[in-house]
Amino acid sequence: MAEAPIRVIGIDPGLRRTGWGVVETSGNSLRFVASGTVTSDAANDLATRLKELHDGLTRIIRAYEPDEAAVEQTFVNKDAVATLKLGQARGIAMLVPSLAGLPVAEYAPNAVKKAVIGVGHGEKQQIHLMVKVLMPKATFDTDDAADALAIAICHTHHRQSAAARLAFAG
Amino acid sequence: MAEAPIRVIGIDPGLRRTGWGVVETSGNSLRFVASGTVTSDAANDLATRLKELHDGLTRIIRAYEPDEAAVEQTFVNKDAVATLKLGQARGIAMLVPSLAGLPVAEYAPNAVKKAVIGVGHGEKQQIHLMVKVLMPKATFDTDDAADALAIAICHTHHRQSAAARLAFAG
Repeated sequence: MAEAPIRVIGIDPGLRRTGWGVVETSGNSLRFVASGTVTSDAANDLATRLKELHDGLTRIIRAYEPDEAAVEQTFVNKDAVATLKLGQARGIAMLVPSLAGLPVAEYAPNAVKKAVIGVGHGEKQQIHLMVKVLMPKATFDTDDAADALAIAICHTHHRQSAAARLAFAG
Repeated sequence: MAEAPIRVIGIDPGLRRTGWGVVETSGNSLRFVASGTVTSDAANDLATRLKELHDGLTRIIRAYEPDEAAVEQTFVNKDAVATLKLGQARGIAMLVPSLAGLPVAEYAPNAVKKAVIGVGHGEKQQIHLMVKVLMPKATFDTDDAADALAIAICHTHHRQSAAARLAFAG
């Protein structure tokens, strides 16, 4: 029986730039749909900037109608101010797909690396290269958009493993 | 000329419990309107919990129709995980009033303490006591709701000072 294709949006949250990438998976095939970057204007106050991220992500979800979402579980160890800032952006990145009724999965950075380059560590450039290898038609305007595509790919792997486990159990 | 009364919602963000308090100010008078606590269910995943906070705060803003919002600028120095968690809740607390078209001010904890107890330090109990002194009719179900009322009071002071400065300049 042919599976219905599933659309996944990956999101790499950041207050200044939030990357997003939409992929479609059907069985073992993986197809690039779109990617991009939502930005907030640093000249605006924090509440306005969070609204800019909310409005941008809401538009993307309406335009591409993903079925599931995946967000990176980032940790900043620099300082509390940077971590709080990232947390605020991440809150919006988790909220928007949830408001649209999508299940939202979270993946640690090393899980994302493992899914695209086979090991739990590696350079940003290596991730971008593998995104292009896995989906030759993929394009991305920023590092954040490429990372978002990697997060989406990671989710397609994990949901397939979960489906396989269910099939084996059943 | 009599000023039109202004309604302010104060928000004390937290993932488990977000306190809120609505006050009305007109000239030098301060009136308690309502307060309470929005909670998220720790058994749910993060995206669902953030949606619970969003939905709760959205209902409060629709019910009490505040004109302006104020959120505490909290820092957790415990660890990065706690700070990220707080940041996510705080993102929602800033976003919801912004989506409703309200200006959202931020105040550091010592500014809030200074506004209600006269100095930039003090115990939680002292803040709660002063909230009751300033607004004898105030009630609150949790510490977070009391803190949210203190944040709202702080904002009424600061917006009055700003108005006085404008009057002096004009």
